[in-house]
Amino acid sequence: MKPEPNSNPAQFLIDGLQYCVWTREVFEQMRRGGVDAVHATVSYHGNFRDAARDLACWNRLFESNADLILHGRRGQDVATAKESGRAAIFLGLQNPSPIEDDIGLVEILHALGIRFMQITYNNQSLLASGYTETEDSGLTRMGKEAVREMNRVGMAVDLSHCGERSALEAAEASERPVAVTHANPRWWHPSPRNLSDDLMKAVCATGGILGFSLYPLHVPEGSGCPLSSFAEMVARCAETLGAEHLGIGSDLCQGRPDGTLRWMREGRWKKPLAERGGGDDSLPEMPSWFRDNRDFGNIAAALAGVGFSSGEVGAIMGGNWKRFFDESFEPRK
Amino acid sequence: MKPEPNSNPAQFLIDGLQYCVWTREVFEQMRRGGVDAVHATVSYHGNFRDAARDLACWNRLFESNADLILHGRRGQDVATAKESGRAAIFLGLQNPSPIEDDIGLVEILHALGIRFMQITYNNQSLLASGYTETEDSGLTRMGKEAVREMNRVGMAVDLSHCGERSALEAAEASERPVAVTHANPRWWHPSPRNLSDDLMKAVCATGGILGFSLYPLHVPEGSGCPLSSFAEMVARCAETLGAEHLGIGSDLCQGRPDGTLRWMREGRWKKPLAERGGGDDSLPEMPSWFRDNRDFGNIAAALAGVGFSSGEVGAIMGGNWKRFFDESFEPRK
Repeated sequence: MKPEPNSNPAQFLIDGLQYCVWTREVFEQMRRGGVDAVHATVSYHGNFRDAARDLACWNRLFESNADLILHGRRGQDVATAKESGRAAIFLGLQNPSPIEDDIGLVEILHALGIRFMQITYNNQSLLASGYTETEDSGLTRMGKEAVREMNRVGMAVDLSHCGERSALEAAEASERPVAVTHANPRWWHPSPRNLSDDLMKAVCATGGILGFSLYPLHVPEGSGCPLSSFAEMVARCAETLGAEHLGIGSDLCQGRPDGTLRWMREGRWKKPLAERGGGDDSLPEMPSWFRDNRDFGNIAAALAGVGFSSGEVGAIMGGNWKRFFDESFEPRK
Repeated sequence: MKPEPNSNPAQFLIDGLQYCVWTREVFEQMRRGGVDAVHATVSYHGNFRDAARDLACWNRLFESNADLILHGRRGQDVATAKESGRAAIFLGLQNPSPIEDDIGLVEILHALGIRFMQITYNNQSLLASGYTETEDSGLTRMGKEAVREMNRVGMAVDLSHCGERSALEAAEASERPVAVTHANPRWWHPSPRNLSDDLMKAVCATGGILGFSLYPLHVPEGSGCPLSSFAEMVARCAETLGAEHLGIGSDLCQGRPDGTLRWMREGRWKKPLAERGGGDDSLPEMPSWFRDNRDFGNIAAALAGVGFSSGEVGAIMGGNWKRFFDESFEPRK
C-alpha cells in the first residue's frame, strides 16, 4: 500500500532536482503525485542573456499554468503551494556561466528567482573545477567571492558535478548550509560523479543536505537498480550522517529528446564529436519504480520498509528540503 | 519662509525624474531636502545586458547607502522610506532598448525593479517614434504588445521624449494611467520636446500625471527662468487639467560631466560628430532656485504664492506621484 505523501498538512513532498521538458502534463503529474515543491534546472550552459531568455520561458509557464504551479522564492511558498493544491517550483542553475565574470549578477539572478547555483558543471568554471577535469585546482578567487555573495543574497551553493577538492573548499568557505542536490554515495555506485564519504560529511557539517539521485548513471545496475537497494543505501547514510541531512534529488529528465545527454556534456565549449553516434546520446530509462512525479509513494514505502519511522520518512521525502529552503533563500541579515 | 515639506507624515515629497551622478552626497541632499522618493534613470542606451550592469551598480548603491536610500518597488515603499528617514529610489529606463526585441524582458526587468519605461528616447525605437524623427509613424506592433505587457506586470508607460502621434496612441492603448515624467507645456516654452495641449489632456484622461521639468532647455529663458513663471504655468495647468494630474519631474542631472549631453543624444546609433565641439556638450546650469534636492521648498513656496491651497501644494509636490505609484507598480489582478 502506498502512503499518501500529501495528506498531512505539516508534511511536505519535495524533489531536490528535475530537468523535465516542462509541460502541463508534468505539472499535473506533480499534483497527482502529491509533490509540493521541485527544484527545477533553468540552464546548463550559456551566459546571462541566455539565462534571462530561459527565465522568461519559465515566466510564461508560471503565467499559463497558474492553477498547477507557482514560482517558489522562499520556504513558506511550499506551504502556500500545498494549501492551494499546487507545486512550488524553485529555479536553479547547473552552471555558474550565467553570472559570467560579473559578481553583480548573483544578486540580479537572485532577484529573478534563482535559488540554487552549481559552482561548476563537470568542467572547470570561473569558480571551481568539475569532477571530469584531470586537475582539480579548488575554489578559485572568484569562486570564493561568489560563495560569499551567494551566502549574502540567499542563493544556495549546489556542489553537484563538482570536483572533490573544489567541493570540499566550497563547503568550508560557505557560511550557510550547502547542498548536493543530486548525487549518491560513491561506496554505493563508484561513479566519479558520486560522493566520497569525506565530501558527504563536509556537506552535512555545514547543516546541509544530500539529494539522492534516481538517475540510472548514478545508481548500481542502472535502470534495473532495485528499489530495496536504494532504500538500504539511504538507511546506511542515515546511520552515519543523520537522517536530517538526507533528501531526494531525482534528476528526473522526463521527455528530453535524444541528443540531450550529448548537448549537456558538450555544451558550447566543445565541437560536436562526429564519432559519437546516436548510441549514447539519449537519456537512459529511469528505474521502473520511479517513472515520473506520481511515483514518490514507492520510495516513501520502501523507506518505511527498511525501518525508518514515519517522521523520518517525512523528513527524507521533503521535510529536510523544506528546512533547507527556509534557511537558505532569504538575504542574510 | 520655506515650508517644511517633510514634516507632515501624510505628505510626500517626490521627484518624477532625476539622472544625477549618484553619490552619497546627493542622497544626503535628498534627506536634507525632505525628499521621500525619486524616480531615477538607470539607462539611456544599450541592450538588456547593459541595463543589467547598470542595475548591478544600483544594487551596490543600495547596499552601501542603506541608511539613506532604499529600492522602491511599490507605492507603500515611499512611506517606509519616509518613516525611516530615507528616500525611496524608483528605477526607470529612458529608452526601451533594454527589452531588445523580446517581450519577455518586460517582466524580467520589472522583477529587477524597473518601474518606468519610456517607449522611445528621441528617435525611432522598436516601440514608437521619438519627437526628433521627421515622420512619427505611431505605436508599432511591438509597441502595442509592450504597452499591454507593461500594463500587466506593473511598469509605468513614460511618454517623455515621444513623438506626438506615438504618445497619443500609447495613451490610448494603455489600460492603466500613463506618465510624462519630465516635460512642460509647449505653450509655455515652444520646444518640440514639450507637450501639446492635446497630449496633456490625453495623459490626464488615462488618470495619468505630468511631471513638470526644471531643465533649462524645457523652460523659457533657460537657466534664468523665473520661479514665478514656473509657478504661474503650473497654476494655469491646474485650471485646465486639474491639480490632481500635476507633479514635478525636475530632470536634475547633478554632477554629470561635459559630454553627457552629446552622449545622450548620439547614443550608440550615431557616429560622433567631430564638428560638434566642446561648446554644446555640457549640461546647462539649473535655475538658481533649484540647484539640487535641497531646493524643493522654493517650489512649494512659489506654488503657495500663486494661490494653491496647502493640500494642492502637497499633491503637486508628491501626493499625486504617490497615488500614481500606488496604482501603477503592482501586477494587474
